[in-house]
Amino acid sequence: MIVFLNGKFLPAADAVVPLNDRGFLLGDGLFETMRVANGRPFRCAQHLERLTRGADFLKIKLSFTPKEIQKFAGELIEQNKLSEAILRVTLTRGAGARGYSPKNSGPPTLALTLHPLPPVNADEPVQWSLVTSSFRLPASDALASFKTTSKILNVLARAEAEEQGADEALLLNANGEVAETAGGNIFWVYQDKICTVPTGRGVLPGITRAVVLEICQSLGLETNKCVVKPEQLRNAEGIFVTQSALGIVPVAAFDGVPVAPSPLVDQITAAYHEVLTKE
Amino acid sequence: MIVFLNGKFLPAADAVVPLNDRGFLLGDGLFETMRVANGRPFRCAQHLERLTRGADFLKIKLSFTPKEIQKFAGELIEQNKLSEAILRVTLTRGAGARGYSPKNSGPPTLALTLHPLPPVNADEPVQWSLVTSSFRLPASDALASFKTTSKILNVLARAEAEEQGADEALLLNANGEVAETAGGNIFWVYQDKICTVPTGRGVLPGITRAVVLEICQSLGLETNKCVVKPEQLRNAEGIFVTQSALGIVPVAAFDGVPVAPSPLVDQITAAYHEVLTKE
Repeated sequence: MIVFLNGKFLPAADAVVPLNDRGFLLGDGLFETMRVANGRPFRCAQHLERLTRGADFLKIKLSFTPKEIQKFAGELIEQNKLSEAILRVTLTRGAGARGYSPKNSGPPTLALTLHPLPPVNADEPVQWSLVTSSFRLPASDALASFKTTSKILNVLARAEAEEQGADEALLLNANGEVAETAGGNIFWVYQDKICTVPTGRGVLPGITRAVVLEICQSLGLETNKCVVKPEQLRNAEGIFVTQSALGIVPVAAFDGVPVAPSPLVDQITAAYHEVLTKE
Repeated sequence: MIVFLNGKFLPAADAVVPLNDRGFLLGDGLFETMRVANGRPFRCAQHLERLTRGADFLKIKLSFTPKEIQKFAGELIEQNKLSEAILRVTLTRGAGARGYSPKNSGPPTLALTLHPLPPVNADEPVQWSLVTSSFRLPASDALASFKTTSKILNVLARAEAEEQGADEALLLNANGEVAETAGGNIFWVYQDKICTVPTGRGVLPGITRAVVLEICQSLGLETNKCVVKPEQLRNAEGIFVTQSALGIVPVAAFDGVPVAPSPLVDQITAAYHEVLTKE
């Protein structure tokens, strides 16, 4: 696989960062994950807009414009001849001194890597069993709007779920309210409404989350942003997770209890695939 | 400078990690910072004990024993001929796949790097101006006991303080209580008692914090672990920060208001230097 690193295309095996890259030392960076469909990263502009806002917040001066990054992504996809894939864009503050101060660091590190889609079995579409994590997100967090590389909490929540034989972790915030999953946003169906958590409560405003809200509008499905406790998800008529890499993933079981399949989730999933392949 | 990386000693310029090191991708790692005095890392055993506990919690299987790491540190100090320095030990989960799941990753990455002490001006001993950060720590956090490399909050808090012309940031927890500083633990003197924050409220149990508590006991100074609001620090008869790299740093100003120098802080600092040079 060929990767992009700081302006150059090179084999993945040769792609290295110095030991004093602050991404490595302190999780001092940002990333985006995109689904590549038909050779193009889906909703690339929105992902790069979030990356740019994050870089502004972290005061990391991007060496490339979003347009240039999009062009590099296109070249990377072409060089790897992988038109259906997952693209990860990683931006860190670059090399710097020991210690927290970001003074005298940089230039930033920008890496684009392409990853094959997980193998799909048409007879057994992907669905997840979801378990509530023992880890909690902050209830309000200035950083929640940005996708930083300081993601140890998400790693541990996912690992905990996997140890329990589940696929994904539901994270509550410090108030015990449903927030998001380790790697995505959460939606559920209740009284035929498509519900999700409002942003600003420790929740990352996911790009796929936004796509689903658009789809609901175009399908005439009522949506509802509401704050719920995990117990309330037991009454859901369907649960699904949204994330850029895998799109919409229906939840088949929540905390060990089966979740009924929902025709509304199927309808949204079909509409999502249409948007994904058309754009 | 020579560094240690995964069993080898090599020039810092040649020390690199692969782009898919999960430390770089996700802050999926741990670190320790130690003061090297008289050619030996101070309280090395305690630091490596915390690292080992953290690795257990993160389920990172260390490739080396604490004893071996201590031996590598000694060799690194000798090779660099730097007997007064700062040692950083970084441990990450190593190379892995994209995504949060730690499955099929590793072997872990272990790096030891040596850094010169900041230049000291004997006429102007280091003292800090401290400002309250706008960033908040979680009020309770399973991860607070470990020094992970997911440190974007600390980086941003320090950066914010520096932008205000200060040296260090005081972090409150989500309840608005004093927790710690971006890079250390906080102590203050009140009614001749040496006060600090109890652990278990988002506070890292610092090694230098423990040394100071020992010193207070040996000097017959009364200590008090208490939960306070930042306003209460205004009545302090002295404030200081403890951290492994710099030891004890007196606070000269808090949120722009001068803090009186405290003879008790001087007494503890002198005792700390004695312990540091004797051990």
